[in-house]
Amino acid sequence: MKFCSECAHPVSLTVPAGDNRPRYVCTHCATIHYQNPKMVLGSIPVWERDGQTQVLLCRRAIEPRYGYWTLPAGFMENNETTAQAALRETEEEAGANVELGPLFTLLNVARVHQVHMFYLATLRDLDFAPGEESLEVKMFAETDIPWDDLAFPTVRTTLELFFADRARMRAGGSHGFYTQDVDRPMRSDV
Amino acid sequence: MKFCSECAHPVSLTVPAGDNRPRYVCTHCATIHYQNPKMVLGSIPVWERDGQTQVLLCRRAIEPRYGYWTLPAGFMENNETTAQAALRETEEEAGANVELGPLFTLLNVARVHQVHMFYLATLRDLDFAPGEESLEVKMFAETDIPWDDLAFPTVRTTLELFFADRARMRAGGSHGFYTQDVDRPMRSDV
Ligand SMILES: [Zn+2]
Ligand SMILES: [Zn+2]
Repeated sequence: MKFCSECAHPVSLTVPAGDNRPRYVCTHCATIHYQNPKMVLGSIPVWERDGQTQVLLCRRAIEPRYGYWTLPAGFMENNETTAQAALRETEEEAGANVELGPLFTLLNVARVHQVHMFYLATLRDLDFAPGEESLEVKMFAETDIPWDDLAFPTVRTTLELFFADRARMRAGGSHGFYTQDVDRPMRSDV
Repeated sequence: MKFCSECAHPVSLTVPAGDNRPRYVCTHCATIHYQNPKMVLGSIPVWERDGQTQVLLCRRAIEPRYGYWTLPAGFMENNETTAQAALRETEEEAGANVELGPLFTLLNVARVHQVHMFYLATLRDLDFAPGEESLEVKMFAETDIPWDDLAFPTVRTTLELFFADRARMRAGGSHGFYTQDVDRPMRSDV
């Protein structure tokens, strides 16, 4: 940030009165330009038949991490809820028709100023198709997940927690909700 | 937003190529200025003695909602996690020394582009004191909560859920995690 978005004068990085950390402050109109973390919302679209659990993944058609596999996810927009954002991204990236379940993971990626959240979701059918941001969309059983070609550590963490949770559920438990800090390199922002 | 924060030229509200909603786009350097929801993080500081549960509330010394009661909470900053933000706000607003528990509520307030989250917290002692943004800090049993003088609907929702959850726990349950959309008027931003 170099200029004030309200009056176009230069901003300077200073600690405002009564504050305790540097902010971009306009030298002309005194507007304080706060910068805050962003939320990335996605889903874990699940298909269960004959005792087998499959999860939908998208292969990215955009940078960062072009060509790598991800759960459908993206930045939350103004005027929507976390659940609406997860549904929208699932529709946009995978053309998938899901029923959203409970929130499953909330993962802090403090270094890149992001919080990633994934909702459980049940696919209503297998009538999906890649959106503009995906090269392909495919179903994977646990043993087929391309662990070495996943786009982001939060996708890996969520998938690991998901399959562990499924095993726990088969033993009679109920779904968990997991918060975790993710420190592994992101390679770049979502 | 009127001017580009990168080059100081005017921005215009247009739908960028490949996008599907209006953004502030710089007419000179083509930077797209995305706007995203913000997270408000807080805690429910709990003190339990002789079978009585008390919760710490702060009376706001700042607008909006000057003079009204709130759980300690505020905007999450870059370079911190949701838990660190909740701890920081609890320390800043109430001078309270707490041990943070699990995330308890995640409340969407889509109309004002905010997501509010509250962590359960256990007070280590009663050695608290109002920070700069609080007029006073006080402990309340459920029957004493100033329900008509709470600052924000998300504080009310979180307190209602908390005391209901406590009752459920006394009956042998374990702590819940609640996500909810809050549509009641906010009167103004946090
Ligand atoms: Zn200015
Ligand atoms: Zn520009």
